[in-house]
Amino acid sequence: MSRERRAKALEQFAEKNLDAFLVTSLHNIRYLSGFTGSNGALLLFPSGEAVLFTDPRYTLQAGQQTDCKVKIAKGPMTGIIGRFLAKRRPLKLGIEGDHMTVTRQQALNKTLPAVTEIIPFSGSIEKLRMVKDASEIAIIRKAVNANAQALENALKRWKPRMSEAEFASEIDHQNRKLGAEAPAFDTIVAAGPRAALPHAHPGLTNTGGGMILIDMGAFHDGYASDMTRMVYAGTPPAKYKKIYKAVLEAELAGIDAVRAGVTAVSVDKAVRAVLTKHGLEDKFTHSTGHGLGLEIHEPPRLGKKDKTKLVPGMAITIEPGVYIEGWGGIRIEDVVLVTERGCEVLTPLTKELRTV
Amino acid sequence: MSRERRAKALEQFAEKNLDAFLVTSLHNIRYLSGFTGSNGALLLFPSGEAVLFTDPRYTLQAGQQTDCKVKIAKGPMTGIIGRFLAKRRPLKLGIEGDHMTVTRQQALNKTLPAVTEIIPFSGSIEKLRMVKDASEIAIIRKAVNANAQALENALKRWKPRMSEAEFASEIDHQNRKLGAEAPAFDTIVAAGPRAALPHAHPGLTNTGGGMILIDMGAFHDGYASDMTRMVYAGTPPAKYKKIYKAVLEAELAGIDAVRAGVTAVSVDKAVRAVLTKHGLEDKFTHSTGHGLGLEIHEPPRLGKKDKTKLVPGMAITIEPGVYIEGWGGIRIEDVVLVTERGCEVLTPLTKELRTV
Repeated sequence: MSRERRAKALEQFAEKNLDAFLVTSLHNIRYLSGFTGSNGALLLFPSGEAVLFTDPRYTLQAGQQTDCKVKIAKGPMTGIIGRFLAKRRPLKLGIEGDHMTVTRQQALNKTLPAVTEIIPFSGSIEKLRMVKDASEIAIIRKAVNANAQALENALKRWKPRMSEAEFASEIDHQNRKLGAEAPAFDTIVAAGPRAALPHAHPGLTNTGGGMILIDMGAFHDGYASDMTRMVYAGTPPAKYKKIYKAVLEAELAGIDAVRAGVTAVSVDKAVRAVLTKHGLEDKFTHSTGHGLGLEIHEPPRLGKKDKTKLVPGMAITIEPGVYIEGWGGIRIEDVVLVTERGCEVLTPLTKELRTV
Repeated sequence: MSRERRAKALEQFAEKNLDAFLVTSLHNIRYLSGFTGSNGALLLFPSGEAVLFTDPRYTLQAGQQTDCKVKIAKGPMTGIIGRFLAKRRPLKLGIEGDHMTVTRQQALNKTLPAVTEIIPFSGSIEKLRMVKDASEIAIIRKAVNANAQALENALKRWKPRMSEAEFASEIDHQNRKLGAEAPAFDTIVAAGPRAALPHAHPGLTNTGGGMILIDMGAFHDGYASDMTRMVYAGTPPAKYKKIYKAVLEAELAGIDAVRAGVTAVSVDKAVRAVLTKHGLEDKFTHSTGHGLGLEIHEPPRLGKKDKTKLVPGMAITIEPGVYIEGWGGIRIEDVVLVTERGCEVLTPLTKELRTV
């Protein structure tokens, strides 16, 4: 698996005539080598040779996880990579410009022959990661299912006196019980008018009366899930029902628009068209969705600008929302998998209007 | 508060004749401006003028949190900062080399006049942050107390059938209930022989028989706590008692060595001397401790190399450990506050040998 991914990565650089490419994003290192440690760097050579650098804490783990050569660095890693490279006398070295600090590049420069040309790239490996392979899809499916189950389990323990923060913590607890490594982002529980803040931080507000917006996700085997559901504590008034229906219609239109070959922006447009019909377009203040995988937010971005064409195997969210200051907000979010003719909705939970 | 901190920051650059200094670490921005948002940059000028850049999500929040001028950037922030600076025609611009990517520096370069000299600095603001002021100490005290209470609460819910992961999740849950924003790091619960791994990730191993190593911390109002305690499920054998006693003796010797004017390395030496006396020096495979504050790991590092002199107001951990492969490990960790004549142990929990 890793070997095939590395071959694809090298294809991207073929015409640049690089002598080596240095990967420093931990997510990209995991993707290309299998290594999951918290410190590392990966050197790729056009010959197919791949060398993983890490520190003594990971000697055993690196040997088990990767098919790359492993070099254990005692002391500052940049110096050791630089000296290793200096021996190979590379003329052109590619680096990940988004994942290397200015200080680290300076340290690397000092150890390399003066003739070396360092070329920063942006988003090259991330572009490959957009399309998930079978093993990744299986993990994402598992993560999405567990996240849905965690909400069901947490709702069974919900009590009218609970604060947003208490319920958010219950959700995280249930996700962990189902095997999650960590939340994929700070769980959002926003009650009543606070649901109008798309990124509300759970606080002491009571969840016992009115709308509750719940946006939650967790990492399983390194891959993120992401889901938003609304629950109404009590009997929802007509306005809530009406807006809920409009957002759901928009979300379903987004799902309907997803298929191989269409652009990310066209899915966003399909969602906005429904909200415009309901006179709610200006209340939808963020993008329709995003890719997810080893990170919670990955390309493509389903917004007003990104013209990336959808490809089978992309895992993306569809998450329209309507936010009305002083009243509240409604968002509905699923993870879907792009297929040749449409998409598969991975999130297993109902989107019927729900009350507690 | 923020204004005084900015004045101190500028003093550091006085002799470099900078025209401006660009702060891009979110922790350093918070420290120098009060702003806690997830996107921002702060420009400091020798005149005392300070300009905070952030995006439209934070218009209201930035206005409330900071006494700096606020500029709201619609679109890529680097370009907007660059154009703002270009108008001022700086000749020498300091940047945080550890907190700026190569890609971002390239984008900044493009918008600045060609005569601008960009000078990367490392660790300048972090150096100031080592010594906590009264408001910071009050928050750290609160965070450390809550973390101790969370362990007590979690232990009341401990059951012999619980896995490491379940108990770790219970600890996180209790910390959240006490107002923590998030864990300060992945909580460690390591049972039996797994306690020999200093950074064990909680797994399915049962905690019902033998030693349990618990290393936990959480953020309160942005500041981290950190604590390690041992609990023995059952009746501890003689070897456990003996090694526990040796580690505790080493930890107390470390605390005893802390006072204003001594070096970080001398505290590490005092700890190692005790373990050497017990023939355990080679089983202590990490450093004695570290500073903590807005980040869980801050300078100074109490290890074999750091010669930083301790100063009243530094908050540091003392955390010796002994790790024996196949048997287990024992670590005891407190947070202490450096004072003129010694230190104050902030962690309120007993270090008597404890069983469940």
